Amino acid sequence: MLKLDFHPAGRHFLQIPGPSPVPDRILRAISYPTIDHRGPEFGALGLKVLAGIRKIFKTEQPVVIYPASGTGAWEAALSNTLSAGDTVLMFETGHFATLWKKMAEKLGLRPEFLGLPGIEGWRRGVQADMIEARLRQDSGHAIKAVCVVHNETSTGVTSDIAAVRNAIDAAGHPALLMVDTISGLASADYRHDEWGVDVTVSGSQKGLMLPPGISFNAVSPKAIEASRSARLPRSFWDWEEIIAMNQTGYWPYTPSTNLLYGLSEALDMILEEGLDNVFARHHRLAEACRRAVRAWDLEIQCADPSVYSPVLTGVMMPDGIDADAVRRIIYDRFNMSLGAALGKMKGRMFRIGHLGDCNDLTLMATLSGCEMGLKLSGVPVAASGVAAAMDYLAAHANPLPLRAAA
Amino acid sequence: MLKLDFHPAGRHFLQIPGPSPVPDRILRAISYPTIDHRGPEFGALGLKVLAGIRKIFKTEQPVVIYPASGTGAWEAALSNTLSAGDTVLMFETGHFATLWKKMAEKLGLRPEFLGLPGIEGWRRGVQADMIEARLRQDSGHAIKAVCVVHNETSTGVTSDIAAVRNAIDAAGHPALLMVDTISGLASADYRHDEWGVDVTVSGSQKGLMLPPGISFNAVSPKAIEASRSARLPRSFWDWEEIIAMNQTGYWPYTPSTNLLYGLSEALDMILEEGLDNVFARHHRLAEACRRAVRAWDLEIQCADPSVYSPVLTGVMMPDGIDADAVRRIIYDRFNMSLGAALGKMKGRMFRIGHLGDCNDLTLMATLSGCEMGLKLSGVPVAASGVAAAMDYLAAHANPLPLRAAA
Amino acid sequence: MLKLDFHPAGRHFLQIPGPSPVPDRILRAISYPTIDHRGPEFGALGLKVLAGIRKIFKTEQPVVIYPASGTGAWEAALSNTLSAGDTVLMFETGHFATLWKKMAEKLGLRPEFLGLPGIEGWRRGVQADMIEARLRQDSGHAIKAVCVVHNETSTGVTSDIAAVRNAIDAAGHPALLMVDTISGLASADYRHDEWGVDVTVSGSQKGLMLPPGISFNAVSPKAIEASRSARLPRSFWDWEEIIAMNQTGYWPYTPSTNLLYGLSEALDMILEEGLDNVFARHHRLAEACRRAVRAWDLEIQCADPSVYSPVLTGVMMPDGIDADAVRRIIYDRFNMSLGAALGKMKGRMFRIGHLGDCNDLTLMATLSGCEMGLKLSGVPVAASGVAAAMDYLAAHANPLPLRAAA
Amino acid sequence: MLKLDFHPAGRHFLQIPGPSPVPDRILRAISYPTIDHRGPEFGALGLKVLAGIRKIFKTEQPVVIYPASGTGAWEAALSNTLSAGDTVLMFETGHFATLWKKMAEKLGLRPEFLGLPGIEGWRRGVQADMIEARLRQDSGHAIKAVCVVHNETSTGVTSDIAAVRNAIDAAGHPALLMVDTISGLASADYRHDEWGVDVTVSGSQKGLMLPPGISFNAVSPKAIEASRSARLPRSFWDWEEIIAMNQTGYWPYTPSTNLLYGLSEALDMILEEGLDNVFARHHRLAEACRRAVRAWDLEIQCADPSVYSPVLTGVMMPDGIDADAVRRIIYDRFNMSLGAALGKMKGRMFRIGHLGDCNDLTLMATLSGCEMGLKLSGVPVAASGVAAAMDYLAAHANPLPLRAAA
Repeated sequence: MLKLDFHPAGRHFLQIPGPSPVPDRILRAISYPTIDHRGPEFGALGLKVLAGIRKIFKTEQPVVIYPASGTGAWEAALSNTLSAGDTVLMFETGHFATLWKKMAEKLGLRPEFLGLPGIEGWRRGVQADMIEARLRQDSGHAIKAVCVVHNETSTGVTSDIAAVRNAIDAAGHPALLMVDTISGLASADYRHDEWGVDVTVSGSQKGLMLPPGISFNAVSPKAIEASRSARLPRSFWDWEEIIAMNQTGYWPYTPSTNLLYGLSEALDMILEEGLDNVFARHHRLAEACRRAVRAWDLEIQCADPSVYSPVLTGVMMPDGIDADAVRRIIYDRFNMSLGAALGKMKGRMFRIGHLGDCNDLTLMATLSGCEMGLKLSGVPVAASGVAAAMDYLAAHANPLPLRAAA
Repeated sequence: MLKLDFHPAGRHFLQIPGPSPVPDRILRAISYPTIDHRGPEFGALGLKVLAGIRKIFKTEQPVVIYPASGTGAWEAALSNTLSAGDTVLMFETGHFATLWKKMAEKLGLRPEFLGLPGIEGWRRGVQADMIEARLRQDSGHAIKAVCVVHNETSTGVTSDIAAVRNAIDAAGHPALLMVDTISGLASADYRHDEWGVDVTVSGSQKGLMLPPGISFNAVSPKAIEASRSARLPRSFWDWEEIIAMNQTGYWPYTPSTNLLYGLSEALDMILEEGLDNVFARHHRLAEACRRAVRAWDLEIQCADPSVYSPVLTGVMMPDGIDADAVRRIIYDRFNMSLGAALGKMKGRMFRIGHLGDCNDLTLMATLSGCEMGLKLSGVPVAASGVAAAMDYLAAHANPLPLRAAA
Repeated sequence: MLKLDFHPAGRHFLQIPGPSPVPDRILRAISYPTIDHRGPEFGALGLKVLAGIRKIFKTEQPVVIYPASGTGAWEAALSNTLSAGDTVLMFETGHFATLWKKMAEKLGLRPEFLGLPGIEGWRRGVQADMIEARLRQDSGHAIKAVCVVHNETSTGVTSDIAAVRNAIDAAGHPALLMVDTISGLASADYRHDEWGVDVTVSGSQKGLMLPPGISFNAVSPKAIEASRSARLPRSFWDWEEIIAMNQTGYWPYTPSTNLLYGLSEALDMILEEGLDNVFARHHRLAEACRRAVRAWDLEIQCADPSVYSPVLTGVMMPDGIDADAVRRIIYDRFNMSLGAALGKMKGRMFRIGHLGDCNDLTLMATLSGCEMGLKLSGVPVAASGVAAAMDYLAAHANPLPLRAAA
Repeated sequence: MLKLDFHPAGRHFLQIPGPSPVPDRILRAISYPTIDHRGPEFGALGLKVLAGIRKIFKTEQPVVIYPASGTGAWEAALSNTLSAGDTVLMFETGHFATLWKKMAEKLGLRPEFLGLPGIEGWRRGVQADMIEARLRQDSGHAIKAVCVVHNETSTGVTSDIAAVRNAIDAAGHPALLMVDTISGLASADYRHDEWGVDVTVSGSQKGLMLPPGISFNAVSPKAIEASRSARLPRSFWDWEEIIAMNQTGYWPYTPSTNLLYGLSEALDMILEEGLDNVFARHHRLAEACRRAVRAWDLEIQCADPSVYSPVLTGVMMPDGIDADAVRRIIYDRFNMSLGAALGKMKGRMFRIGHLGDCNDLTLMATLSGCEMGLKLSGVPVAASGVAAAMDYLAAHANPLPLRAAA
């Protein structure tokens, strides 16, 4: 019989950019007994999580919660708002932007894929001026939606969504703005309403610190309006009936009750800490991580400091080094999982996740494992990244929030 | 802060026909730490559950596991195999058959809905001869698929799928056979391969004793062949890439890791007990339940004893009694959830779930709660159903399987 | 490898008079991560449970919490207050009173064991007038303590402690009053201060619904005074240092942190329900159980209705029936554990626990299992006890407390 | 309501020398439903843990498991084997040796406390030659037992027990040898039989990785023989009845069922890893820790390298530094608990625990927190201890054991 608890002695360090480590509080919450999804207790749970999740997206509009993982929420965003043959403008920020584009093609849409040449787009994020220029050309408004990734999990770049909004407005173009912040939500600042996003897509297994399995569409009135005439076939993903039943805290079909327990707990944790404190914590850890990478004299995948991701850091390997071999050594000797490079970057970098339930010492453990692994792999390291990170963290250490309140 | 553990003192009895009570073993399993879905441990888990679930469906063919609840697996079955405008022959067995039909319409298919008049179809299950007759008329083979529900959760009728297979064969018709056994799997005998089913749809929160959130498509070679030419847009539900990656135990996008832990545990439990023992246990409890209903002199919703469901029993109320008021009294006074009547039957019956992790004394608790609730609601009760059930169970009690094996 | 989760399918019914079934809420609480028992969080936990447990004992005096099971708390009561050779007056209410007496002997005390002849004392509880008479004879005050069991777990008799207090006072005797309410606390009304008890002994695994492993001494000022001159050797059990350190929420040696988490949760549950509601619930269930026994025309072990236990009911078998054989059949066929008869009653009765996290339907399951087991064992049963219990419960069913409060 | 899960975001690092961090596997195990401690499943559990624990003590003799924390097992060792007024020879290795001595006094024994002057004894462990010399003087064999601490938790010194055995033998003295390895068991090599120990005392919350609450006496035939004539009063701690009932896997009074579940899981984990691998892991981490301390140019509390503890390292502060202030800064800013100095060392050092479920990266996190905390506290640090530890760990990294075995 397969033993699911088969790690070597000591805690495994799960430092991939998601799924992020699920806190014990949330694991216990998802183990509450499953209840009747048509009974009165469920309604109370439903209303609570539906209200709370809006605060995370910073929206007053509906947030649809799907009993499906994040890839489903991508499909939901497209299929609720578009029709076969519609042109959508997408921007190549990395592997996940590319996968979303492929999905658009499979669904019968016509994605146009803007981007910088080579791997430059994978290092600099969305170029709002390119979007604006393209939209200005589209005088006939053939483009129905602009789709961008907020935090590119494959690279560690967090694009400027407000700039994309401004680009669309500057072009005077009516296209919908759809944003994937699957790995950004609750780690990087995100403002669905203020930034005028029409559909925001997100998932559970990143900043929300839940296991994978539920996902989200935050929707604007304009998106709902678009859904009335959109003709892509849809049933499971259809917003209309869900939003209607959500008024009383229920869903038209069976929701993922136990993950909603986890969501309820995650909302409590995040809102108790305070969203701004959560973001500040992520920025502090990300900066410490980057200081380590610079001390090693390795290149950070994100080439534009203004769009460094607070969620993960991509570390590029010198020529001739197989990043996956380095990851394997770290996994085998130090019981830590790092993220592999994907798509165009395959084998050329690894990704360090520092999101969700992460703190100073977990990051230090992570950087120690990387530094030892780099040495064991024969990667030349200029100076101790661990020392650089400690210098930064010690210099910026504030007392932790008070505990033990009765 | 919402307290999720807010039941009154003592255990809640969740006797709806799903979600069924999740055993502690499984709740603990789903609280294992989430791991990297691209790491080596995950592959071992993936291969295990993919092999095990085939035994439950009694198939040698692929079983696709979706990180989405059961309604999604309905959509997957249709969108992988059919094209816009295709005619599908469906049979009205109850509320869930009706919902599946509505989904087919929303997806742009043309469902033809066979059925008996009034509520008769809701009491007798699939009439294979009607299907055969209709298929014989369809000499042009406009009908692309026959879709039926194996265990109708809304009524307590378990239709004869082998008979449907025979009907299709007798008519010499090439239509695909698609079966929903969301609430039947692992409670009622089911044979995907032997019965020649092309797509079997199921979910986690019934006989598998898991929380809701994952679902299944078991697929035949003929179904895969059909998927090559099917033109309904699909991406998330697309079988091809999933089946390909499943060879090594992985998924193309993030799977629902923690529910797969639960599935692994559920498979261990079910296969240790033995599928035949599981089925026999369900039949025994269902028969005891029906004896109680008969003693009360109330009508069993299923009017054909050859298709009584081993999963649930629908209990019809006398005229003038609001079944939901009875359910509410039982919930408020005895801390037990029963299933409401749905659709055409609304308010006229309630449903007793006796599936999954159920045993003799849990059933006796359930029937006691029903009997007391009926009396408190003023429903005349001819004799004690509890006594009738005890007579049956005591007369058919076998020693339980040995425990404590080292 | 021993599989600890090896019950047959379906929930096991643990209907012994303790350990009582531990609610999921408490099982989850005891799985919180162990913390530093010298750190600030621990102090907050310590102060909370020390304050809360006083409410359960209805005392303003210190309650000492031992990281040891209930038998240890018996020893603590004796060794803190007495000296070698001291005479203690004990009363034979059953097996546990007998064990406590044996412990007194082993510790070098001289217990005098009052009691009714034969098994009468095991059916009628403490006779306060006998205690009074004996104390009146003891003009030299050789008797240093009167020790009685409040709720005799071996018989189902809950003695009148106020009457014992009155007896001591009426005799004008200075002996300490020590009471074991290991199985009574938080199920039967208990008033440490009002009844003038000097040492109350209790444990975790009964009305407090915790696993076994921690235990209690509630102590009066007079008991503390006695401890200053008591000369039985003691260190682990010594109150003084514990009470001193408890002022700040800590213990002199390592406490049982995870069971204290459970205690914290149990206190929340009990105080939310309200002690009076908890007691009323126990009385109602006990009365329903006794009605079942009477309907079966079997004898209730407790022969004096004024001291029926709300915690458990002893059911005597007709001559020629081996109660343990009946229990075994019920265990093997219906997956339910009942309590064996102990000591003088061995094989002549079984004990039904209806304490702690018990409710109407759990009791009905229990009585159904008994009724079926009695029939399978060939015990003649006059009428359905299950029917009698349902009649009582339905006639006395009140709406359950509101749930789902935000 | 007190929220027990009130740590700041991110995992707390519990790096005190016990309670050590309890692995998730064990926390889940202790949350299994409590069962009847007189039923057949319990017997299987009892036999398993009683057999397994012997392997950990390396003994063929009985190991008594108490439902009480470690301090109780100290008392059990003394009270089972000695009589009031007996002389026992104890050795001052630190705070816990001192506490055991105080307990002996409270129990009416006459401890003689050997030791080196000042704090030297707290830095060098048991001096077997001093014991031998003292025993040689005791020609009348007034000394009934020699009591020593194997791993002094207050200092980080692991004394040589075989040397103490040899000293007793060399002196030809019949005294019993009693050893406290509460914090050494399952972390440092220990051989109850081979070393001729008569009573070994241990607890659950250190190398066994359990929460506190159960404790152990491993006993030799000579100890059992001594217990027959020992006259200290005892009942709860009495070996005789426990050992007798343990033959069938049961206990005379209620055991701590849920912690025994944890023990069962801990035994599986430790024996799967292999005791020798467990010891090697502890030695490797301890050496890395000491290299860090030396790089900081701080003094290791243990002054004799031959008795360095694999369990914890005591780090002495320069004059004028309050070690508790350093600990507080580390706790407040880096969410890590370290051990305070106790007794004679109060305020002069802190203790780093690296025992139980610890691995390379957890140690690196710990040392990083210490190094940052030292700097923030103004403690001059010569060089990076973190770098020194990484050098050692990377140079001695072996592939971890294979996982994911089916």
